[in-house]
Amino acid sequence: MLENLRILDTTLRDGEQTPGVLITSDEKLKIALKLDELGVNVIEAGSAITSKDEQKSIKTITENNLNAEICSFARPVKVDIDAALDCDVDSIHLVIPSSDLHIEYKLRKTRDQVEKMAVEATEYAKSHGLIVELSTEDATRTKIEDLKHLYDLTISAGADRICACDTVGILTPERSYKFYKELSAFNVPLSVHCHNDFGLAVANTLEGIRGGASQAHVTVNGLGERAGNASLEELVMTIESLYGVKTGLNTRLFYEISQLVERISGVTLQSNKAIVGQNAFAHESGIHSDGVLKKTETYEPIKPEIVGHRRRFVLGKHVGKHMISEKLKETNQEVTDDELNRIFERIKALSDMGKTVTDVDLQAITDDILHINPEDSLVLEEYTTVSGNTITPTASVRVTLNNREIITAGVGVGPVDAALAAIRKSISDVANITLEEYHVDAITGGPDALIDVVVKLKNGNNVVTARSTQPDVVLASVEAYFKGVNKLLTDEKRMNNG
Amino acid sequence: MLENLRILDTTLRDGEQTPGVLITSDEKLKIALKLDELGVNVIEAGSAITSKDEQKSIKTITENNLNAEICSFARPVKVDIDAALDCDVDSIHLVIPSSDLHIEYKLRKTRDQVEKMAVEATEYAKSHGLIVELSTEDATRTKIEDLKHLYDLTISAGADRICACDTVGILTPERSYKFYKELSAFNVPLSVHCHNDFGLAVANTLEGIRGGASQAHVTVNGLGERAGNASLEELVMTIESLYGVKTGLNTRLFYEISQLVERISGVTLQSNKAIVGQNAFAHESGIHSDGVLKKTETYEPIKPEIVGHRRRFVLGKHVGKHMISEKLKETNQEVTDDELNRIFERIKALSDMGKTVTDVDLQAITDDILHINPEDSLVLEEYTTVSGNTITPTASVRVTLNNREIITAGVGVGPVDAALAAIRKSISDVANITLEEYHVDAITGGPDALIDVVVKLKNGNNVVTARSTQPDVVLASVEAYFKGVNKLLTDEKRMNNG
Repeated sequence: MLENLRILDTTLRDGEQTPGVLITSDEKLKIALKLDELGVNVIEAGSAITSKDEQKSIKTITENNLNAEICSFARPVKVDIDAALDCDVDSIHLVIPSSDLHIEYKLRKTRDQVEKMAVEATEYAKSHGLIVELSTEDATRTKIEDLKHLYDLTISAGADRICACDTVGILTPERSYKFYKELSAFNVPLSVHCHNDFGLAVANTLEGIRGGASQAHVTVNGLGERAGNASLEELVMTIESLYGVKTGLNTRLFYEISQLVERISGVTLQSNKAIVGQNAFAHESGIHSDGVLKKTETYEPIKPEIVGHRRRFVLGKHVGKHMISEKLKETNQEVTDDELNRIFERIKALSDMGKTVTDVDLQAITDDILHINPEDSLVLEEYTTVSGNTITPTASVRVTLNNREIITAGVGVGPVDAALAAIRKSISDVANITLEEYHVDAITGGPDALIDVVVKLKNGNNVVTARSTQPDVVLASVEAYFKGVNKLLTDEKRMNNG
Repeated sequence: MLENLRILDTTLRDGEQTPGVLITSDEKLKIALKLDELGVNVIEAGSAITSKDEQKSIKTITENNLNAEICSFARPVKVDIDAALDCDVDSIHLVIPSSDLHIEYKLRKTRDQVEKMAVEATEYAKSHGLIVELSTEDATRTKIEDLKHLYDLTISAGADRICACDTVGILTPERSYKFYKELSAFNVPLSVHCHNDFGLAVANTLEGIRGGASQAHVTVNGLGERAGNASLEELVMTIESLYGVKTGLNTRLFYEISQLVERISGVTLQSNKAIVGQNAFAHESGIHSDGVLKKTETYEPIKPEIVGHRRRFVLGKHVGKHMISEKLKETNQEVTDDELNRIFERIKALSDMGKTVTDVDLQAITDDILHINPEDSLVLEEYTTVSGNTITPTASVRVTLNNREIITAGVGVGPVDAALAAIRKSISDVANITLEEYHVDAITGGPDALIDVVVKLKNGNNVVTARSTQPDVVLASVEAYFKGVNKLLTDEKRMNNG
């Protein structure tokens, strides 16, 4: 069943149920447009009954005439279906709790009552022109005969598709194959809906499809309640790359849509997230980087471009000499074998102390080995900031730029912003350096936290990253900025000389 | 083969190869001690040849006489094995590239040469008393007859165990079962080693074990190159909870060790990480929270205590009335049904605007509905900070505490620290409030980033969380602190009256 698989994306419904995640109407539309461009078949856009704003969100999406079928979640009650109808959706995901546990403890009803509600809701929705995907909640803890009976009743009542939800993520690949195979005999399409409580959601979804399901419920980045749902990008790339079956989706959009959902949801991906994480195509170990430099396939299962991502090499204790020499060549710096060995040793020593080696560190070590007097173009002599809730945050800086003393002042929204504004002014004559990214993070969670600031600065086509760690957030920001500016100014000289 | 499974943890070797991750000698020992307490069978402590510091790290671990077998990674060359011997390890993980791709492009050798190296390295290691786990790199892209031939040769040479690595994570559950079954006929134990490039590492490891592998290679949090390795906690909980087979590991330590590795490695888990993520047992949606309040099994596959984690309820747009009323009861606040409905509506409205609802927000809404004049005990009239690289960061604050004006000053490592010190002084007469956690995060990555500060404050047994978002990090910190202090002082009054 891997061929002709349909994808129902529920990032905007099950994904948005992630604790702490809230997606506004405008943001929902942005994600829906991108999902449509990606080519998913169904977008579950929300649960219309949740609130007035949720209804507005869904309606904004249905008004955009997307290719995808637009679906709302609904409980088997008239008000839910009416709310969905008000949003002009194409379909409803009609969810019926089916396990004894859910019927008895959550709904406090009898199975007969629930079956009656399911049938009536299906009939009501069908009579109003909706496509009905009849879904059983906690299906994997439901007696199989109870489940089949519920499907029989609701298919007779007009349900167009059925879905069995592994609500608490207790399937295993082996069990999932058998479970969905058992349910695939009905004469309507079957959906697989898996949760990731044991880290098995993608594998279970895959095995559910191999068992006979023809539609998969997934979310971007695997967002969702608790440990989330099956991840869209992991499932699709498994089918495309490991089974060699085309899904028809534009996989080159995966990284972009992942970034969009990460930014909007605020759920930050871990760097080792498969397919779309920052490390998914990053290489540090000497053996690995060396292999990839010789031939990418040695340590990459697919090329990063296929999912719109990029390859990265990271300096670290496992770094190989090959990579260091590649990095130096980028700025026209040639070193002898002996020099390379010594740079290599120093980087290893730095790493052993628990430091990540940045561009700026590599340069400092290289300059030292080559007996180049680094001679920073820009030297910080002094800075002072004043801020408060009743005054305009202000900073003054005194710097030496190419041996010329410059004093400038700046204001900003806070002391960091004011200090950086003052520094920017001091170098405005010599370079047009822009701050592309500013990251701040407390390394320890306690009150005397060390603050880690990483800045990404750009000068023409050259982009460098620099870091400083200090207990004082303003000082850390100023220092990181200075280090980055000096690296950029030095690279410029080197590239002009090269 | 799920019974009697052995666990080889490679957090300290394959996990440490994660780009950007560096673990110092002291930190490695901390993790090794915890892994030993957890009960893993083998700890792969590093690769002795990497550097002098790495050797020191491994030696420190072997000197501690742990129960676990201590292992070093080694390439099939004498220097690597000698370095491992210098560290007094019990065993080596002897890794031989086995695919044509790796032999030809990475090693630039012939298969005959590589086989000779493997046999000689095995014999050399055995003659020096080491246990040898002979591992084939990129085994899943190696012709099966080549693989078997290599195992035959090295087992004859004395290899104690064999391991087949899915180096670029291209197995599927289905293929993994067959692959490891095919290799399980040798008369030595077989290890499964999977990578997570398609999100399938845990499922592939599980199926490899079911196929016949008797030892699994895993890492805490699934740390490792690119998308990482199979996650220790997910694999073990799958076997224990879904197959009902005891592994002998002390699963109650999973959350603790996950936190330890997260802190030391700096690789932050995404909140929806299975088993150990912050959301793994968190509930927001009204339906879900309501279900869990009635009976935890409705939406939890296992109890969080089993892995040393805890349950969390998060307020949000899907919040149910049941949960709000539970939250208010905690501080002796009773509301009528009508009042509860109105609080509920207001929380939904706030959520629709894209805000996460904190304890302080819920209180503000409740006070408003109940016509309680909040009357903050502590009011911020004015604060000023001065900082720089040549002066001591200093702050002054003027506050009104229970209608009494107080002016204090403080110094600190930076302006935030100085401001909080000044405020702490101003309230020292009335309460002993401690700052338990301080989190800072830039919401947008750009230069005019909004800074989000969340503080966790404690007064006796009462702990509250408060947030402020401002472009100015000092102002955000001061505001969040004030909000939290006021909530604590108000709760104290309420609990004394209740």
